[in-house]
Formats: sequence, C-alpha cells, structure tokens
Amino acid sequence: MSQIYVDLLKKVRENKPLVHHITNYVTVNDCANITLAIGASPVMADAIEEAADISAIAQALVLNMGTLNARTVASMIAAGKSANKKGIPVVFDPVGAGASSFRNETAALIIKEIKLGVIRGNISEIRFVAGLGSQTKGVDASESDLAGGNAGQTAKELAQKLGCVVVVSGAVDTVSDGTKIILVENGHPMLGNLTGTGCMCSSLIGSFCGAAPDELLYASATAMMSMGIAGELAYTHAGQKGNGSFRAALHNAISLMDGQTLEKKAKFHEA
Amino acid sequence: MSQIYVDLLKKVRENKPLVHHITNYVTVNDCANITLAIGASPVMADAIEEAADISAIAQALVLNMGTLNARTVASMIAAGKSANKKGIPVVFDPVGAGASSFRNETAALIIKEIKLGVIRGNISEIRFVAGLGSQTKGVDASESDLAGGNAGQTAKELAQKLGCVVVVSGAVDTVSDGTKIILVENGHPMLGNLTGTGCMCSSLIGSFCGAAPDELLYASATAMMSMGIAGELAYTHAGQKGNGSFRAALHNAISLMDGQTLEKKAKFHEA
Amino acid sequence: MSQIYVDLLKKVRENKPLVHHITNYVTVNDCANITLAIGASPVMADAIEEAADISAIAQALVLNMGTLNARTVASMIAAGKSANKKGIPVVFDPVGAGASSFRNETAALIIKEIKLGVIRGNISEIRFVAGLGSQTKGVDASESDLAGGNAGQTAKELAQKLGCVVVVSGAVDTVSDGTKIILVENGHPMLGNLTGTGCMCSSLIGSFCGAAPDELLYASATAMMSMGIAGELAYTHAGQKGNGSFRAALHNAISLMDGQTLEKKAKFHEA
Repeated sequence: MSQIYVDLLKKVRENKPLVHHITNYVTVNDCANITLAIGASPVMADAIEEAADISAIAQALVLNMGTLNARTVASMIAAGKSANKKGIPVVFDPVGAGASSFRNETAALIIKEIKLGVIRGNISEIRFVAGLGSQTKGVDASESDLAGGNAGQTAKELAQKLGCVVVVSGAVDTVSDGTKIILVENGHPMLGNLTGTGCMCSSLIGSFCGAAPDELLYASATAMMSMGIAGELAYTHAGQKGNGSFRAALHNAISLMDGQTLEKKAKFHEA
Repeated sequence: MSQIYVDLLKKVRENKPLVHHITNYVTVNDCANITLAIGASPVMADAIEEAADISAIAQALVLNMGTLNARTVASMIAAGKSANKKGIPVVFDPVGAGASSFRNETAALIIKEIKLGVIRGNISEIRFVAGLGSQTKGVDASESDLAGGNAGQTAKELAQKLGCVVVVSGAVDTVSDGTKIILVENGHPMLGNLTGTGCMCSSLIGSFCGAAPDELLYASATAMMSMGIAGELAYTHAGQKGNGSFRAALHNAISLMDGQTLEKKAKFHEA
Repeated sequence: MSQIYVDLLKKVRENKPLVHHITNYVTVNDCANITLAIGASPVMADAIEEAADISAIAQALVLNMGTLNARTVASMIAAGKSANKKGIPVVFDPVGAGASSFRNETAALIIKEIKLGVIRGNISEIRFVAGLGSQTKGVDASESDLAGGNAGQTAKELAQKLGCVVVVSGAVDTVSDGTKIILVENGHPMLGNLTGTGCMCSSLIGSFCGAAPDELLYASATAMMSMGIAGELAYTHAGQKGNGSFRAALHNAISLMDGQTLEKKAKFHEA
C-alpha cells in the first residue's frame, strides 16, 4: 500500500493533536476514548462562553449534531469561525440530517457559516446535505438511499461544490476531494450494531486531519481504514461473543493499530 | 412457555422499531446500545425544536427523567403529545421520583399531560407516582419500600388508575395492566451494581412496545424477562471477574438473545 | 500498612454514601459506575430546580467542570451552598482550569462561594487554581508543568490557603491537608490512555469522603490508592489486549477491591 497512510498514522501518534469536539451526549465517551486510542487528545467544550477559545488552542474541530439544541448550535458556529480564523480543519458530522427541520436548518447554517474541511455521514445524510432527495430512519441511512444513493458521484459533486473532502460511510466508504475518489473496503456489518461507530469515524478523521491539515483527503481515508480494519479485527476476536465484547475489542484494535497492521489489512483503491 | 414471548422478540428483530428517547446523559449510551442489541433502532433527540417531529417518525417514545431540566421537560411534553397524536406507545421512567420537588412535579405533569403506555420504575418511584408514601435514596429504592411496598397491588391499582401498563422492577419484576399481573423472576442482584440497568429495561420496553403496540402487557413482560435472563447469563459468564466484564457480558447476552434462550430460561407466572 | 486505609474502604462498603454529582457528560457514566463499584451510590442531578435539594439528601457532593455551561455553573453554586449548609464534604475537580477564561472564572467563583473539602486535579489545573502560572493542553497537564510543577509544595500551600485537602494526580499522586503530605505511588501510565480516569478519581474521593467526612486526608489518599492499584491490576490482566479490555479490567478491579488487596499493593509514604 502507499506509504502515505502509514506515515499519517505515525503523525497522529507523534503530534498528538488536540481535537476539540462539540458533539452529542450519546456517544461522546466513545469519541473521547477513540481519540485517545488513536493517539490524539480530545477536549469536549460546548459552552458559548468558551467554544471559540477552545478551538483556538486545538489542532482540529469536530462538529457533530447528534443531539443538537439551540445552545450548542450557537457554540458550533462560534467554534467553527474560530477554527476557520486559526486555519485548523473543521470536520462536520451531520447526524440525522433529513430527519427534522431543525437538523436540516442547522446543517444548512453550518455549511453556510463555516468553511469545512471534511463532511462525513451516511448516504442519507450526505444526500440530504447535497440537496438531493433523501430518506432517513432517525439517524440511520434508509434502505432506498443505500440501494440507489450513488455514493461516489454524490461525494465527488458535493466535495466540488463545498470545496472540502466528503466521506460517505457504508459497506464501502467513499472519500472524495472533488477530484479523486478513494474507496475503502474495510469494515464489518457488526459495526452497525453499536451506537457511535459513525461518530467515532468523525473523531478519527478529526485526529488524522489535526495531525496532517494539508492532507485532508488521505487523512480522512486513513481514518476510515483504521476504523474498518478495527471492526474486522474486533469481529475476529470477539464477534461471536456479542456486542459488549465486540465493543471492547474495537477500542482494543484502534489502540493497537500500527503501520504494519494498516499495510497488511487495508483494502482500498483510488477511482 | 407461552409462544407469545418468543413471537414478540421475533417482532422486534423483524420490525426494527425506531425508538425515540428523551433520556438522561448518565446512561444514554447504554440505552442506545441495548436498543440496538435487542434489534431496534434508537434515536435520541431532546431539543424542543425537533422533539415532536422525531416522535412523529418513531414507533415508540421513551421518556426518562434521570437528569431532567427545564429545557428537556418541555421537550418531553411536546414529544409525548406528538406520540399520542400518532398513536405510538409512550414509556415513562420516573427516575428518582420522590427525591426532589422538581422530579415530583415533573412526574405529575407528564402523567397529566400525556397518555402513557407503560410506566416502569423501582418500588419507591412507583409508590410515589401512585400517590402512596415513599422514600427514595437518590435514584434507588429505599429499604423500607422494598420490604413493605407491595408491588403487585400497587402496580395493579396504578395501572387501573392511569389506564396503562405498570412495571415495578425488583428482585421479582411485577408487570400489570390493571387486570392481569405477570411476575418475572429472572434477574441477578449484580444488575444493581451497574448504573443504567433500570434505564435499559425502559429502553427494552420501548423496543418491544414499538414492535407490538397492541400488546403492551406482554411486550413489557418480555422486555423484563430479556433483561433478567441477560443478567443471569452475564453473571454466569463474567460475574466473578467484576463489574466491567459483567457489563460487557450483559450487552453480549441481550445481543444474542433468541427464542430458544427465552423458552429455556424464562421464569414467570401470571397472578 | 496503616489500618486506617483498610477501615476507610470498609466504611464505604458499609455506609454506601449517596454521592451527588454535577459533572460532565463525557465521563459521567464511568463516574456513576465507579461510584457503584467502590460501594457507594451515585446520583446525578444538575437542574437548578433541584440541585440544592439533592445535595441535602446526599453524604457528599462532587463538582466537576469538564463540560460546564452557564446553566450548570449556577447549579454547582446552589448545590455547593446546600452541601456546606448540611456539612457534607464538597469535592471539586477543576477540569481544564487554565484552558479558557470561562473555566478560570468558574473555578475562581466556586472557590470563592463554596467551602471545599477536597480539590483534585492534574498539576496544571492545581497550579492554575493556586494562582501560579500554568499551561494546559486542553484538559491534560502540560509537559512543562509536569516537569517543574512541584506538586508537593503546591498542594501543601494551596491546602493551607483554602483550608481543604488538595490532591494532585500524576505518576505519583500528592495528597495534602496543609500539614501532612501523603505521596501515593500506585498507578500505571495506561490510565492516561482512557478518558475519565481523573474524573473517576474525584468520584472515588467523593465516595470515601462521604463515608468518612471527618477524615478527608486519608479518605482522599485511599481513593487515589484504590484507583492506582486498580490501574496496576488492570494492566496486568488486560493491558496487552488494548484500551477496551483495560477499561473493563479497571472497573473489575475497583469492584473487587478489598482490604487485603489494599494492604498488599498500596505504595505510599507520608512526607
């Protein structure tokens, strides 16, 4: 495999970027732990009184609208503007876009007000953000979008439109900067049986992008590979035991991820 | 055992109901994961701007007042009214009722404003909601209520009064619709050593009721059996190892729960 | 070792103190579970409408400013005043003090308005609270503070100034009441790879202090020993497996902690 992915993992471990999150209270603990497991440093702070200050000392910002409310939306905007001013990458996870007017308007506001580095979502969320029709089932992709969503084309066009990297999570993850498309084939269906695996992907993207702000496309792809490979390893070690053991094994695998494992296990191609 | 319990589990797995939660931030991750583990789909959304909208696309609503505040109380009422309008079951978990005026008033408000499908709590909480004297120790049942709380009679009368199913969790779980009483004898004391096992019961009830809205009594009983059996299995597999392993084993057991295990392990009788 | 530590653990298990937390949503589940694992009883309640009422029925109060906001700051003050009035110990964890003006002002406000029993933080946080220069990296201690922070002297002087016990977490934990200094040498570097291990220390301190409000120095030291020993045991049992297994093993070890383990494993000296 290309040495670039291995080098990016090394960079995270060496630079230990501080990743500011404004995220949901459902999966925030998993996000903090996965950020530590990959070698970065998480800080969660959503008060309007400090959101901009915390982004100003961070190397990346992750905005995740899983359990948004009026108070945190204002903080997301303030943090995003601070991140833009400082020039650190902003990763946006439009959880549940399409499921309510409030989420839809918030997603639109964030895209309008903040220069994003990466957007990551499932096909329903990304189709909604791209202004295409979509259906969601709460915070999960709908079956019709999964069947006909055309992730590659959607990602590429949205990336061009917004001038950022777009990641569509799925059985195959699609990563595009508007020019290239990287398809990451790692992963395991059992990841869908745990809450927060999407949110954790966004935290990993924040970690890699914080360590390598000039390589957002490859940083995002390496994050997705890491999670996919970790899912495969977790299934091998603990999948038969059930969800609780699988979850611990997933965190194990991210914390033990190294260049050799990436080289051996990564399955991807550039389209 | 009656085939109805086995069929209800099958229905959850087949229908994958979307269960809207407005719940506390202490155990929300466990609630989301247990909902996924039993085969349903969780969505957590507590902003007043979207609470009603999200309930309108769900198959059940769970209101849990573990860490309530003025903002989320308003959202609970809005979500509850939306759920009532749509006709989906509302499960209410009056965490800590009796422990503060704020909790007491909120419980009363929810009961007044919303047509509930199921109320689940420990004996202290249920006695408080029923207007009987009760003592609580924070969010746990008091020893005096445990000794003399008379769960069966209390559950039956409260069920009649409110026209809903009442579940009293304890060493033996009591489930009544005001006519029948089902006593579920599964469980293990170690469940009391983990936070959130009560909340997870309410999420399981939401999952079963969302899949079978016309069978709230049996749906609630199956949820309690599932948790009780999972506790027994988790103790067998990991109880000696300590709380962390027991917790993972509990999630394992719910994710692997099947009709055969229910049939073999369920201990209950109708009174 | 001195019998006092063993007796304090016994007291927690016998008295099962109710520990009211106003804490962050990142690690709150770990805090609740570790409080249960050591034998105490957690209650989390942060609404201004009930904060004072809940403290009034508790045996200890833990204030943790990990994800503070204007709403919860007001509740912390109300709960703290209620705890002071009742005479129960207040444990303050100034997470991220030094990282933003909002955190700095909140820490100053809490210290001004509330009579604290124990303050616990890393060297950067404690140096900031003590009015010494400090640098933080988000919520982690900076390398310069770790190298030259002089934990013993800082803890002792701050303890004298505020009339409370001060705990500085680190490779060696420093506990001082302004007269004595206890150095606890238990622990393992892997604890730094999990989120919430500091917060859990504060919850354990709350548990021990709630059980022994007249022995805050030794109660705090026993809490730190318990966490340190648990970290060592968790590393031995699961460290090689990765972060997820280490985390479960840490909770296992706290739940299985007993006098014999304390006696055998504790490494500390009074300075």
